[in-house]
This record gives sequence, C-alpha cells and structure tokens, in this order.
Amino acid sequence: MTDTAPDPHDLAPFRDLLGESGVLADPAMTARYTRDQRDLMQGETPAVLRPRSVEEVQELVRLARRHGFGLVPQGGNTGYVGGATPEPGRRQLVVSLERMTGIRAVDPLNFTLACDAGCILADAQRAADAEGLFLPLSLGAEGSCRLGGNLGTNAGGLQVLRYGMARDLVLGLEVVLPDGTLFSDMRTLRKNNVGYDLKQLFIGAEGTLGIITGVVLKLWPAQGQRATAWLELAEDAPIPEMAALVRRETSDLASTFELISASSLGLVAEMRGAETGLKAGPGGAVLLELTASSERIPLDDVLMGCLEMLMERGWVEDAVLAQSEAQRRAFWAVRETIPEGEKHAGGSVKHDIALPVSRLTDFLNRGAALLAERMPGVRLSVYGHVGDGNLHYNLVVPAGRDRLDFTRAVEAGFAHELYAAAIGLGGSFSAEYGIGRFKRDLLVRYSDPERLRLIETVKRALDPDGIMNAGAML
Amino acid sequence: MTDTAPDPHDLAPFRDLLGESGVLADPAMTARYTRDQRDLMQGETPAVLRPRSVEEVQELVRLARRHGFGLVPQGGNTGYVGGATPEPGRRQLVVSLERMTGIRAVDPLNFTLACDAGCILADAQRAADAEGLFLPLSLGAEGSCRLGGNLGTNAGGLQVLRYGMARDLVLGLEVVLPDGTLFSDMRTLRKNNVGYDLKQLFIGAEGTLGIITGVVLKLWPAQGQRATAWLELAEDAPIPEMAALVRRETSDLASTFELISASSLGLVAEMRGAETGLKAGPGGAVLLELTASSERIPLDDVLMGCLEMLMERGWVEDAVLAQSEAQRRAFWAVRETIPEGEKHAGGSVKHDIALPVSRLTDFLNRGAALLAERMPGVRLSVYGHVGDGNLHYNLVVPAGRDRLDFTRAVEAGFAHELYAAAIGLGGSFSAEYGIGRFKRDLLVRYSDPERLRLIETVKRALDPDGIMNAGAML
Repeated sequence: MTDTAPDPHDLAPFRDLLGESGVLADPAMTARYTRDQRDLMQGETPAVLRPRSVEEVQELVRLARRHGFGLVPQGGNTGYVGGATPEPGRRQLVVSLERMTGIRAVDPLNFTLACDAGCILADAQRAADAEGLFLPLSLGAEGSCRLGGNLGTNAGGLQVLRYGMARDLVLGLEVVLPDGTLFSDMRTLRKNNVGYDLKQLFIGAEGTLGIITGVVLKLWPAQGQRATAWLELAEDAPIPEMAALVRRETSDLASTFELISASSLGLVAEMRGAETGLKAGPGGAVLLELTASSERIPLDDVLMGCLEMLMERGWVEDAVLAQSEAQRRAFWAVRETIPEGEKHAGGSVKHDIALPVSRLTDFLNRGAALLAERMPGVRLSVYGHVGDGNLHYNLVVPAGRDRLDFTRAVEAGFAHELYAAAIGLGGSFSAEYGIGRFKRDLLVRYSDPERLRLIETVKRALDPDGIMNAGAML
Repeated sequence: MTDTAPDPHDLAPFRDLLGESGVLADPAMTARYTRDQRDLMQGETPAVLRPRSVEEVQELVRLARRHGFGLVPQGGNTGYVGGATPEPGRRQLVVSLERMTGIRAVDPLNFTLACDAGCILADAQRAADAEGLFLPLSLGAEGSCRLGGNLGTNAGGLQVLRYGMARDLVLGLEVVLPDGTLFSDMRTLRKNNVGYDLKQLFIGAEGTLGIITGVVLKLWPAQGQRATAWLELAEDAPIPEMAALVRRETSDLASTFELISASSLGLVAEMRGAETGLKAGPGGAVLLELTASSERIPLDDVLMGCLEMLMERGWVEDAVLAQSEAQRRAFWAVRETIPEGEKHAGGSVKHDIALPVSRLTDFLNRGAALLAERMPGVRLSVYGHVGDGNLHYNLVVPAGRDRLDFTRAVEAGFAHELYAAAIGLGGSFSAEYGIGRFKRDLLVRYSDPERLRLIETVKRALDPDGIMNAGAML
C-alpha cells in the first residue's frame, strides 16, 4: 500500500450517504473517470462519487471538507484540457453528475428549459425538440458531454456565430458552493437586474468555485428550414470579408460558417479509405448553413443570392447545395469527423486559437510562414468556426514519431510562437477549450498580473480552502 | 460650516491632478450631478471630478483612498434607482466620465466597436452606423446616457427580445479597481476562455466594484429594412402566445414587441392635448417591429403573414402598418413619450417587473385585481418590453396628491403585494432598472441569504474598504 492509496475507512461516510453504487473505488471502475479525453494524463482518485440529488451533493461537499478530500466535478469527461481529471497525490474525489440527468421543465411560451447539470446535451436538445423548440448549443461531443461540463467550460461549438457561447444561453444556475451551501438562481427570466449576476462567476470557472447542479437555458423556435452549402474557396479567398458578407446578406440567419482546409479534408478521406466526394478549393472549403423557423423566409433564395455574390467577387470557385437531408448530413459528417481523422493519422497537437474575425487571414499567413520555418514538412489540420474567429490549428504527429514526445516538443517551442502571433493580432491561446490542467502555464504566461491577481482574489473569496478542483486553471 | 461641508484643502490634490475644470465644488455647478433623474433624492458631494484619461481615473482613485473620500461613478445620470447619487454624510466624490467620450475603434469586419465609457450611447450608435453597422442597445435616454452607466446597470431597453441585455453585447471591458490598478480586458474576441470571465463581475455591479473606463461592444450589420406595425389587441389577447407566434413566424427577426395599454396611450394624448391617431383595442396595443440587413428577406410579407395569423386567431382586432419612415417614427414617438405622459399627469410610481413571458397574462390579471382591491380608482400606466417579459407597471399619482407622499404610501404597501405576485410567478422586482439606493431594502427582502452572503463576499474581496459607491445596492 503506497501513501497515496485510499484508506477505505475514509470512504465509509460517503458510502453511508450515497450507497454502494454511489461510491466507486475499484481502480477498474474508476479508470474511465481518471483518464482525460485526449489520453494525455493519467489521473488518480480515492473514489468517484455519484450523487443522485442536490442535497447529496451538498452533503458530500461537507463530508469532503471534514475528511480532508479535494473534489473534482466531472460531467461527460469530454474536455480537451484535463479540467476534470483528478491529480495524482492530491486526494481528490471525482464528483460525477452522471446520475443527475433529469429535465426539470420545458416552457414553450417562455422558450426555456431547466434541467439537472448531469443531463447529456443531446438529451436536452431532444427535450426542446419535442416541444417544437430548439437548443442551439451543439458540439462534437454532444452525445456524451453533460450540461454542467458545458457550462463549467463555457463551451462554444458549431453555432456560436448566431447564438453565442454557452454563457449566452444561460438564464439560471444552481451551484453547490465549496462550503456545501446552495446558491440557487434557477429563475427563467431574460431580465433580472438584482445585484451582481453571480451565476456568471461559475460559468467558465471549470469547477473551481463550486459544483453546478442545475441550469436554465434559453431556447429558440424550432428551425424547420435549413439551407446548406459546401463552398470551394479560391486562392487567397478573404475569409473575413466573406464572413461579413454572409452575415449581412443572410440577415444573420447563418448559424454555421466553418472553414475546412484541404489538409483536414484529406485526413477524413484517409481515415475512410475513400474520397469524401467533396472538394476543397485552393483556399480550402467552407460549410455554410442557414436556418429559419418560418416558411415565410425564402431560405434557399437567400443562400443562392449570397453564393452568387461570393462567386462574382471571385472568392468562391464552386459551391454544392445540399439537395436532401442525407446530403446535408454528408457535409456535416466530414466536418465532424476531422478530429477522428487526425487521430487515425497518428494524433495531433491542438491549438485552439481565437482571433478578431478581421485578422484571420493575417494569422493564417503568419502561421504558414512560421510552420515552414520552424517545423518544415509537418502536416497541418486547420479548420474551425471562423465565422466567430475560432481556428483549430492542429499539427499532425509525423509518422513514426512518438505522440507525447512530439506534443511536448511542439508545446515547448512552436506553440509559443503561434500563440504570440495570435495574441499580437488581438487573439487568444484558448477560444473554447479553456485552461484545465494542460494550459495553466499558458494562462500565467499570457495574462497580465492584474488579471491573475483578480482571478486569485475571486478564488480565495469563494473557496478559501481550495477544496474545489485544485490544480485546474490555477 | 457644518461637519459634512467640504474642506477645500482636501480637494487641492484633485485640482493638481485634474485642473480647475476637472473639479467642480460650487454647489451651483454640482447640482445636476447630485439630484437623481426621477427627482426623488437630493444627494450631496464635496466635489464632482471630471477626469480626461484612464490614468487620471487611476490616480484620482488613489488620491481618494489617501484622503478618505468615497467615490460614486456617474455617466449620464439617467438611472431610475439613485445608483449614481452621492449620499449626504458619506463624503463621496462624484466621478463623472463625461469628458472621456472617445470612440477608440470600429472594426467593420469584426463587427465591434471600442470606446471610452463616457461615450454617449447615441454617439456610439452613430459611429457604428457610419460604418454600415448597427449597435442594437437602445433606450429612451440614449441621447444622454453613457455607456459606462449602461453597462454598470446592465441596461435593457427596446431590443432585448432579439439582441439581449447590455451584458450580452459586451466583448471587452476596462475597469479601474478600488485600489487604483487597471483591469484591462479590451479584446474584441467572441470566444476567449482563459480563466474566470472577470468582466462579467463589473457589468451590472452599479459601480460598486470599480469604475468602468472602456468597453468593446458587438455590432451587427446595418438593418436596412424595417417593417413596423401597430396592433390593436382583442379583449383577453394572450400576450405570451402572441409573442411566441411572432418569434416563430418572423424567424426571430422581430426586434421589438412592446405592449402599450390604453391608459398609457391616453396619457400621451393628454400630454399632447390631442389624440395620437393610434388606438388601443380592449386588450391594449402592441408596437411590433421587424428588421433585416438584407433586401433578400421579404420583410413586409413576413410581417403581413404574421399579422394575418394573429387576426385569424382573434387576438388582434386591427393593425396599422407604417407606410413611411414618418409614420414609423410616429408609432415610436407614442411609445417613447409614455414616461413624459406620466410626468405630465403628475408623475408615477414605477414598478419594473420581470416575468417569464408565459406568466404575463397571469400577472396582469393579478395586478388588476390587486389594484382594484387595494388602490381603487388609481390610474395605471402599463407598458413595456413584453416580448422579453418586462412590464413597466406604473401607478399615476392621483390629482391633488403629493407625489413623494403617494410614492411612499405605494412603496410601503401595494408595491410589496405586487412584487410578491411577480415573484410568486417566477418573476422579479427589478428587470432592468437595478437596485441603486432606492431598492436596497427590496434586494434584502427578496433575496435568499446565500445570495446576499455571496454578494457581500464578492464586494468585500474586490473593495475591502468600501470605497466604491457605498450605499448603492448594498
């Protein structure tokens, strides 16, 4: 028995509270909770706690304090930055919300949905859909990620262009604080100016200030109409100008404007062992989708008119319009399997760059020059939500090279030059993934001291004993 | 000389810093800064400080600390809750941002505008317009309110339905903290998950955590097309169902859905001494406006189709479509002069109610019953942004009754019953006005202890000496 091994006696009060099925201590059972999604870090925990109610979460927080455990809240464990992975040596219990999955209420006339934080995103989407409503938060992991995690990381995803980040969708929140008290602000109001908007603190806090247990989200009318196109971009197609034209000419009915580079498209084809049937132009490809809730909007005409303008300007060489739902899904399948394509090719080192949309072209040019100079021959996979300024700028692990080794090499050198280029253009080193345990040093490196000091002030004020997700972000 | 009178020696260092024109101490000069917008409270200040730069704000904060002054940040002094009024006996200097009015940058391809916090809202709207862009924050006071105040109170206004509250429009913020250090987060990014989103703390904090000096706002493409209608509502027209239908059938291109009661319309006519030419139906009237940035959207058809459905269902008796910009402005003039109409009739006691949209009808019924029972014969003026659940539920001061006296009587009795009704329906006693100095007791009365404790924890952590706007909110 090593000194970090769990003492079974410590867990007894948790078993009393949560029952046998509520406390997983067998390493075979806890393995899937202690390994991060990207397979970069092996965590360690005395046990995974699986509460079934808000009251149980409150009580387990009090027990953890009393018995000297730290806590790591976890939703679907789909994050990219190790934010939900308990650290070896820290005696951190994982608090999985996976048994708190209820839809609490859908109000079709108020366009709101209230649910438990452990609700899987796709289940919340379906609950909205069943009432003729639409929950626009959408990302690759939606079949397994949970809303508490989405809010803890302020998730972005595929429709930020029109609907904003996860934060922008939140009307209410319920959080168990580090002392076990409950902060409950589950109102379904669009306007409620009654003192500090405290819920904002917990959104994007990566579980370091409390455990989100419930959430109220804004909904929209169901989008019964869609018009989707695959655009082959001309050489030097100016993405900022294109995105601005699309916003204007579609009257902001565009919900998706995704860049897909020829290289990313190639990775998907390699994984499939067959061409995708879709082509990138010299400037790459864009997946563009418009949606509307009313048949009165001539969505196909709006899209066509928009494409004509893009082609007249010489920015788009050719475009394919989805003629059926099957074809639309085929476009989307390409976009959504790029991460798998990267994995199939041996993995990638991911950079989640945010930029002012107006600086995207400048950044792509600088990135290409940097890569040619510092890492010649390394294969890029560039894609992302360029309509809102978010580029996934990933380097594919070269054949025969050890993945972790290559990752470390990139992160020690090239990554910093890339981040410096982004920041020099008014951008950021983390658009939507967050900080977690993998980007702590980047947060310190790229934040000014006042900002860091303020983050620490808030952390200390709300969690003076550092019980909540120690090691994440800070 | 009383013991609260300013000692002129105390102001010398401020004069050294800001110059003679930067320090107003003559009561004749400070009067317009110390009286609140609704003429309910006479404040008192040793001096009004008028810095011209962020550095001057930082330095004056340090000076104030050293010399034992409190500070009250002030924008256009247009708030409704006394949030910017220095309190007698507190030795609070007013910090007016009125000389920090610059537009710092407009980025048409990024759809952002950066400006100083003292910029008047209408000036920011014009700066956006000049670049073919649109800043949707819009409220009655836009010709004199300043953006720092709009963000300090998280302003709502006329287009929340489509664009959200002021908070939803903010990408970046710059704040001088209570110790004089600068928190600068003026990035123009739509996505930037790098630790706690600290700017959220200052939005809606009513100047109690720092002085906002700069802001980055999201913009939209200019809305070149508008379609506007005045709807006469049938008896018992179900506003929640109407609002939901409008959202769906216009594909959320509706930017305004404002209720105007027959009584509010009557107040405008009385003030003008002539009929407005517009009629309310038995259920009141609605001002509905759709906008689009593209000519490809057949906006008039969309509006017509929507109106046909509302009439087929028997919810709307008649509708007038604005046939010209002049007619459109005439509709809006009625809506925007209701507060003046109330003033002309002798003033009103205002209740800024927020509700889930689905409970609006329930609330209107309860309010009417309550009024008939508790304050029979008192004239109501009910209007507001019902598309987002916000009702201004105002009681006109009866003829011959002292305004302040009536206000106190209503606020001591009827108001609490009205607020209890709203809160019982999941609503709130403050939708967009905030807390300030007039609603402190309501905040305490209607907040649960955990929430109040957390507000105080945050205040203490960021402003341990209570230098910033003491007496507001807390």
